[in-house]
Parts: sequence; C-alpha cells; structure tokens
Amino acid sequence: MAHLTVSVEYGLHCLLWLVDAGDTPLSSRDLAELQGISPSFVAKIFPKLEKAGIVVACEGVRGGYRLACPPEQISVLRVVDAIEGEKPLFDCQEVRSRCALFEDKPPQWATSGTCGIHGVMLKAEKAMRDELATHSLASIAAGFSHKIPETFVVEVRDWTQLRAENRKPGRRPKTPEPPP
Amino acid sequence: MAHLTVSVEYGLHCLLWLVDAGDTPLSSRDLAELQGISPSFVAKIFPKLEKAGIVVACEGVRGGYRLACPPEQISVLRVVDAIEGEKPLFDCQEVRSRCALFEDKPPQWATSGTCGIHGVMLKAEKAMRDELATHSLASIAAGFSHKIPETFVVEVRDWTQLRAENRKPGRRPKTPEPPP
Repeated sequence: MAHLTVSVEYGLHCLLWLVDAGDTPLSSRDLAELQGISPSFVAKIFPKLEKAGIVVACEGVRGGYRLACPPEQISVLRVVDAIEGEKPLFDCQEVRSRCALFEDKPPQWATSGTCGIHGVMLKAEKAMRDELATHSLASIAAGFSHKIPETFVVEVRDWTQLRAENRKPGRRPKTPEPPP
Repeated sequence: MAHLTVSVEYGLHCLLWLVDAGDTPLSSRDLAELQGISPSFVAKIFPKLEKAGIVVACEGVRGGYRLACPPEQISVLRVVDAIEGEKPLFDCQEVRSRCALFEDKPPQWATSGTCGIHGVMLKAEKAMRDELATHSLASIAAGFSHKIPETFVVEVRDWTQLRAENRKPGRRPKTPEPPP
C-alpha cells in the first residue's frame, strides 16, 4: 500500500473536473460515474473537501459541488491535508527516553531537544510538503488542457448537462427523441 | 497513523546502538531490552536489515548483529527502504483512462505520458527521498554523541558485556557475588 490513499487520488481527479466545470455544480455521483469510480467512495471525500473550504455544496435538484475559490489557490498539499488530515510522515515515540539504564527516570541530556531521528524525518516531511505546496489544481489542469480535444470538452459539457436536466422531474427525457 | 511505521523508528534506534558498539555484536533481544521496546518486534526487523546488507549476523552464544559497512554508507533512505520495502508515496490507478465517455476504449491523448497528478506525487516523493538520502547513521550519531556523558558510554558497554557473558554457560553469574 502506498503512503497516500486512493481517496487523495479520487479527490484530486474530481477537483480537476470541477476546474473545467466552472460555475456549473457537479454532484459527487456524476463525478464518480463520469470517471468510473465508486460513488460511495467519492461521496465520503466531498464533505472533507467542503469542510476545508475547497468546494461549496449547492443545494437543489440541479445542485452539486463547485470550487470554493480559484484553482490557483488550491494547492495539492491543501487537498492532501483535507483528505488525509495532516497525517505526519513519522510519529516519534520518544524511544530515546526508554533506555533500561535510565530505570524510568531519563536524564535531561537524553530527552532535550528533538530526537535526531525525528529531526531527519521532519526535514524529509517538509521537503515533501513544500513540493506538494508548489502545485495547484490550476497548474495541473494547465498541463492537461493542451492535450484535450475541443470535441471532448463539448461532449463532457453535454453529458453533465443531460445528467443535471434528468434530475429535474418533468424535463426532457434521458435520450433525445428520434426525429419523426 | 503516520506514513512511516514504528518499525522504521525501532530499526533506526537499534542501528544507532550498533554504531556505538563497533565490532561487538549485539543480539536483537539485548537491543530491545536496552531500549524498552518489544523483542519480538525487533526480531522481525533485523532479517530485513540483514537482507539489505545493512547488518551482518554473527553466530554463536555471544553472537548478534553488527553493521555490515561504515555508518557513513548507511543512509536513512536505505534503512527506510529495507524495512518498508520501497513503498511508493502514491500508487497511480490510472483513473484518467476510465472516463465513462471513452466507453472502455480510452484514446491515446488521454493516457499518454505520466498522469499530471501522478507527476506531482513523483516530484514530492523524490524531494522526500533526496532528503532522507542526505542523512546517514553516522551523521545522526554525531548529533547525539556531543550530549552523551562518557560515564553513560561505559555503563552501556558494561551492560552489554555482562549480557553477552551471561549467555555463555559456566561463565560468571548475572550479578557479581557480594563481597564475603
């Protein structure tokens, strides 16, 4: 198993669709079905993203989620922390204080400052977090956008609009009527 | 739970004792008891360190483990990889290829190159690994050594020697005889 969970992967992919959708809200179910991923899994991620101020929920039949701020302001680090909960790289158990020779009374020299091992891990964690902080939804979306054909953008817009309209009772049917 | 397990923490602490022990082997049981940590836990870590060429096992009643090479050559990264098994930061599931609109036939433009999200994670992982690679057992031990009193070094040496001698049948008893 990797250090970061599949929730982070799904969350980032969903958010990239919201970058493209702009002000049009997308439901977590639509986002899941559009990407072929578990709807119940995605449904658990969005309340975390909402709590972190990354998305806002729009109520109503045509409701869903949209980004709460410009994608330039949503770093990958922010998304990872929102989903994983600021999980540390290393959880120091203060092993240095437990030496049998201390007989449960570790001397001050043994426990002062940060443990040397923990210090290395904090530096490694900072290096990782600094890198995650330099990338945003906007910068990742920019990397994707140059290779996505305009026809696909239109297809996705049609798909999401149709899904939204079908959620409203009494509107046009799921598939257009055939010509007479 | 942190990203790195307690096995990495225990492993690094044990290895630092081996730096101080030099050519004198220490058993995994002695290392565990000296540090007040689970002997069965430590016993599982050492075969991994041995397989990675970080320690060598010395057979016999006074056997145990010693470092397989100078502590300058044993980076924190090497120890982490030996114990965790080169666990990636992020395990890309290629979500981009599953879009419902592709109908199980993702086009080449959608799957060429590395996924943008995966690319960010690979950079963050590299930053973390590069930092872990710059620290060695020797550099961590140097940070500890200036604060350890000489009397403690002697106490530890006496404790480990007594433990080793007590493992040999017919040698002096665990505690010295009281004077007559």
